[in-house]
Amino acid sequence: MRPTLIKHLKRNFEEYVEELCAFVKKPSVSATGEGIRSCASFLAQRMAEYGIHTETRELPGGNPIILGKVSGLRKDRTLLVYDHYDVQPADPLDAWEFDPFSGRVEQDRVLGRGAADSKGNLMAYLSAIRLLSETGGLPMSVTLLFEGEEEIGSPHLADFIDSHSSELASDAVVCCDGEMDPSGRPMISLGMKGLIYVELRCRKLKRDVHSSKASLLPSASWRIVKALNELTDADGRISIPGWREGIVEPSTHDLNLLREIPFDEDRIKAEFGVSDFLHGKSGFQALRDFLYEPTCNIAGLIAGYQGEGSKTVLPAEARAKLDLRLVYDQDADRCLSLLREHLKSRGFGDVEVSVFGKINPSHTPSDAPIARAAAEAATAVYREKPVIYPKHHASGPDCLFTKNLGLHSVWTGCAPGNGRAHAPNEFIGLEDFRLGILYACELISRFAQN
Amino acid sequence: MRPTLIKHLKRNFEEYVEELCAFVKKPSVSATGEGIRSCASFLAQRMAEYGIHTETRELPGGNPIILGKVSGLRKDRTLLVYDHYDVQPADPLDAWEFDPFSGRVEQDRVLGRGAADSKGNLMAYLSAIRLLSETGGLPMSVTLLFEGEEEIGSPHLADFIDSHSSELASDAVVCCDGEMDPSGRPMISLGMKGLIYVELRCRKLKRDVHSSKASLLPSASWRIVKALNELTDADGRISIPGWREGIVEPSTHDLNLLREIPFDEDRIKAEFGVSDFLHGKSGFQALRDFLYEPTCNIAGLIAGYQGEGSKTVLPAEARAKLDLRLVYDQDADRCLSLLREHLKSRGFGDVEVSVFGKINPSHTPSDAPIARAAAEAATAVYREKPVIYPKHHASGPDCLFTKNLGLHSVWTGCAPGNGRAHAPNEFIGLEDFRLGILYACELISRFAQN
Repeated sequence: MRPTLIKHLKRNFEEYVEELCAFVKKPSVSATGEGIRSCASFLAQRMAEYGIHTETRELPGGNPIILGKVSGLRKDRTLLVYDHYDVQPADPLDAWEFDPFSGRVEQDRVLGRGAADSKGNLMAYLSAIRLLSETGGLPMSVTLLFEGEEEIGSPHLADFIDSHSSELASDAVVCCDGEMDPSGRPMISLGMKGLIYVELRCRKLKRDVHSSKASLLPSASWRIVKALNELTDADGRISIPGWREGIVEPSTHDLNLLREIPFDEDRIKAEFGVSDFLHGKSGFQALRDFLYEPTCNIAGLIAGYQGEGSKTVLPAEARAKLDLRLVYDQDADRCLSLLREHLKSRGFGDVEVSVFGKINPSHTPSDAPIARAAAEAATAVYREKPVIYPKHHASGPDCLFTKNLGLHSVWTGCAPGNGRAHAPNEFIGLEDFRLGILYACELISRFAQN
Repeated sequence: MRPTLIKHLKRNFEEYVEELCAFVKKPSVSATGEGIRSCASFLAQRMAEYGIHTETRELPGGNPIILGKVSGLRKDRTLLVYDHYDVQPADPLDAWEFDPFSGRVEQDRVLGRGAADSKGNLMAYLSAIRLLSETGGLPMSVTLLFEGEEEIGSPHLADFIDSHSSELASDAVVCCDGEMDPSGRPMISLGMKGLIYVELRCRKLKRDVHSSKASLLPSASWRIVKALNELTDADGRISIPGWREGIVEPSTHDLNLLREIPFDEDRIKAEFGVSDFLHGKSGFQALRDFLYEPTCNIAGLIAGYQGEGSKTVLPAEARAKLDLRLVYDQDADRCLSLLREHLKSRGFGDVEVSVFGKINPSHTPSDAPIARAAAEAATAVYREKPVIYPKHHASGPDCLFTKNLGLHSVWTGCAPGNGRAHAPNEFIGLEDFRLGILYACELISRFAQN
């Protein structure tokens, strides 16, 4: 770590934090569209002010992509940095202890929706580019790709990447939408799960009706319950025929990486208030299933009367939001067809399946140059070895880089492991952010030398 | 029908309508508590102004009961009139074409939540008492019992009735919380279904969590779906062991009454936009099941993300609101025990069952004096024979009068059959209300002579 860099960061840190706060203050909820355009334009303006050649690319029917390019000292090497400026919805609002879009500093933390996922990470890379440029020059060229639809499954990113592959040409990818390992050590993931996000919807009546007619008229809520029941067995395991095709045993190398992961079961159990994991799993088996088992989660159930107390109504419509995570070489399109066919074959042709997002699983080998550079940079900045996940527990558009662009990709970030991403009271620590800027500087410098 | 009565009504009708509008303007949502006390006090004040001896009885933990007494010409005969001043919640708010509590007249209708169910009916009886008192005198004594918890299953009414049986001593009961038959003819019901309203609730985590942990942590939404699935078979019929105990074949007399009911299947199908009834039932069988089959309706499903688009969340908690209608001699307490035991025995001890209301089924014979008086009064006012239901399709606290007080009871009312009770855009026609006042006058007069 160069002393000038650290000194310069110290001098400029307050300004970088202010920039992050301003970014968090801009709501950008892709699920509802709230604030998206205003936040995108804010981000593009700021990047231009930082000396980055920035373009806002409109996507028909989607949220804009912000594309940035900075030439570095070494021009024959380019790092593609991917992240997103959109955030999860803030609800349930009454569970927040502060305004979700307050974007203020309190007790050495920046508070607000998106502070951890992923505005802190994104701003750490922008700050690193400024810092490196002002202290001897950016060691290599960097292309920045920031989308506004990650939290809804990146529905337009695949098309964009496929049709802009030459503009995105680079030597490797850093997806900085990551976070620190729960152990407090940096985390590097070499692949992501896939994801299908669907809404099942059933409408049986023109309008809601007094429930005394329940013995005469069909019930949308019962249809949704019975349809959902067809998707999993009594133990909650996916029971759609053919679903596990593409799932293989993890490689010996992956299993060895798994064994080095500090998997703190007791902490997770305490954090969420459970005495046991699902199906009584524990230890290595629990970790393995956490990373390598497909899931079918009911993210939302919506039907009829939602308020306090009682209302005797037969709901005209019912909906269920599902996210299904895919692993190994499960194919999102194929799985989606299986889901639709299964519902139809089980007699649920009256249940519509709307797709809100789909993405395939991905993989990068641990000896790839970008994986080595990230691991060395993390060790240098955090003074301890990073935790390397052969597969991240979450999903992301990583396959677009590994499969569509054919690049190696690492998934990492400086957001705290307990930063309450996707939940109320989200935050990033000021020290998380400071180290994140240094980690980004170091990763760029090391990959440039590689 | 006495001409003085009709003339006097014509002169005072505008004022009676204004009183009804003022009543509808007062929200009184028992499910949430909104406006209850203010509406109860409004009603009690108005009744006192009409010359009725009125008392507001506080119920510990419940909504006040308004009790009214008027002495009539014949003092050895008393009619007990039951109704409720509470209303269903107004949601979904965006489906209303006017303010749910506007309480204004438009196109010969009084608009607003409660106009049909049951403020119009209640105000028709109060207007009838005023009208009779001012035109020769009330023919017999009337006791008025207005509760504020009917829409949540009358949880405190049983205790009140049991502990005030001497105050409520009377010769018969009119429950005026009814409506006109869909055929446009008056409707008289000689019994109600029972009802159990419960909320199933499952909480598995301290807080919502990113759904990537779905392979590790238990899912409250899946538990609720699987628990619900245990309650009915693939056809949607209740599959709780022992549930049908107390259900017998309808009597020949009841079946004969059923055959006289104009059951307009096509109108119902068109109104709700269905091509077939549940299980393809039609004709007499459909009508019989409508009135005599127990149901288990999912009135509400609540879990996780309810908004637009997607959110990848594993919900900490899930809830389902159920109303289960009981028929014949099914016993609410026994059925509730069966439900709890069944869930427990099927492994759903983690699903809490909260009871929001319970009421037993009831029955009054068609040759009871009050039934005859109601039928004659309806024929005189509406100039056509009423439709007599041996069992009403809905539920109400009728059993408290028939079983607990041992009285005969009829369920009838002047609200229109298409008045959108429990749904958006509720109303009562001015002519519905006018005839309702005359119907109440006539019923009181005929029962007094009986």
